[in-house]
Amino acid sequence: MRIVLVGATGTIGRAVAKELGERHEIVAVGSRSGDVHMDITEAASIRAGFERIGRVDAVVSAAGKVKFAPLETMTEADYWLGLKDKLMGQVNLVLIGRDFVNDGGSFTLTSGVLSHDPIRFGSSASMVNGAIDAFVRAAAIELPRGLRINAVSPGVLLESMPSYGPYFRGHEPVPAARVALAYAKSVEGLRTGQVFSVL
Amino acid sequence: MRIVLVGATGTIGRAVAKELGERHEIVAVGSRSGDVHMDITEAASIRAGFERIGRVDAVVSAAGKVKFAPLETMTEADYWLGLKDKLMGQVNLVLIGRDFVNDGGSFTLTSGVLSHDPIRFGSSASMVNGAIDAFVRAAAIELPRGLRINAVSPGVLLESMPSYGPYFRGHEPVPAARVALAYAKSVEGLRTGQVFSVL
Ligand SMILES: NC(=O)c1ccc[n+]([C@@H]2O[C@H](COP(=O)([O-])OP(=O)(O)OC[C@H]3O[C@@H](n4cnc5c(N)ncnc54)[C@H](OP(=O)(O)O)[C@@H]3O)[C@@H](O)[C@H]2O)c1
Ligand SMILES: NC(=O)c1ccc[n+]([C@@H]2O[C@H](COP(=O)([O-])OP(=O)(O)OC[C@H]3O[C@@H](n4cnc5c(N)ncnc54)[C@H](OP(=O)(O)O)[C@@H]3O)[C@@H](O)[C@H]2O)c1
Repeated sequence: MRIVLVGATGTIGRAVAKELGERHEIVAVGSRSGDVHMDITEAASIRAGFERIGRVDAVVSAAGKVKFAPLETMTEADYWLGLKDKLMGQVNLVLIGRDFVNDGGSFTLTSGVLSHDPIRFGSSASMVNGAIDAFVRAAAIELPRGLRINAVSPGVLLESMPSYGPYFRGHEPVPAARVALAYAKSVEGLRTGQVFSVL
Repeated sequence: MRIVLVGATGTIGRAVAKELGERHEIVAVGSRSGDVHMDITEAASIRAGFERIGRVDAVVSAAGKVKFAPLETMTEADYWLGLKDKLMGQVNLVLIGRDFVNDGGSFTLTSGVLSHDPIRFGSSASMVNGAIDAFVRAAAIELPRGLRINAVSPGVLLESMPSYGPYFRGHEPVPAARVALAYAKSVEGLRTGQVFSVL
């Protein structure tokens, strides 16, 4: 398969590139890194990127930012940041990418455990992750041409603990290599409308 | 208690007004109807409304629009409509309303069954409902002063079947009076961070 991997240079993306790259052609995408540049927060940039890349069999996204801050100081604009970036950035990869994905192809987005296991400062992340999981369940039943869509919802990564550790006390970290398996299950399996939780 | 009820003239709101109005003072709010007008899609309008209303013990929202359309024709702008209206409209009721709610008071938002049981044309509704449910779980753990927050997630209402019926075939409709009980549980009970599903 020919697979677009957005966020290929990230903590999760590197592990996914390793797992899927053993068996498939990976087109690595980032806003500044990778084979092709795409800024997922700009629809025009996503379209331009896909036009350079051409037809693919799968789109995998391991990208997307949200604001972490105390609920007390969170403003409307702070929530918009995550809705624009991690949520609609990934949804736009589907809305635009569908024109470039072959019949029977798949989309795999990334959410995260905070949808159901919230932490201090995480109200935007929770909101966005819950939106992604529910979008995936809904979009799956309407996608044409045998297209599939799933989300991978990882717990905090072992590799991210040096920076995220203080905010995730008591959460059991998961190695990136284990998280990467869920992306392989989504891309190489046949399930759709699923949230693959890796905890 | 003194309770602000946004959407008091709607299908759900009328039943909530009846249930809670038996025991409490209801301040009915709508964008064009009710005792005080507030357009939840405009932060300034929400703030102006609360400034007229003054201190309250609970904020209940049974309002919020999303676009229903085939995934095939859904655009980025179509998703923004629901994110701006049903999601951030209700979240702004919390972000702004918190300055007007007494210690130990509560927020009750409305999501819906489509987060987990999607229908054709419902991908935006699913996204928004999933976001609300996850936001509520997260915000609950950070709210100060004993403030609480829950969501009510109703199935399709019996009273809405004349218009929604064709889109919800096989869904078991729930009477508005049963849905209203969940709002009473949220406002008059002590639980927080819950999604009260009424199916
Ligand atoms: N790390 C964790 O513990 C964890 C746990 C659960 C969920 N997640 C979620 O998983 C996703 C990836 O996390 P991560 O820790 O692997 O992130 P990361 O290490 O910061 O990597 C982010 C990747 O995304 C790319 N990227 C950033 N902004 C982009 C944009 N606007 N357009 C296109 N590409 C962009 C980056 O490349 P460029 O710099 O070239 O843009 C990079 O390759 C995030 O959504 C995160 O919320 C992470
Ligand atoms: N009906 C169902 O079967 C069902 C099932 C599950 C979930 N829900 C959800 O429950 C909520 C209410 O549904 P419903 O069927 O009761 O709606 P509805 O009958 O259309 O009533 C909407 C209410 O909200 C008010 N409203 C509308 N836009 C507003 C705005 N921008 N600012 C403030 N108030 C506004 C309306 O008053 P004004 O006209 O004066 O603004 C009205 O009181 C929606 O979020 C819906 O998605 C409904």
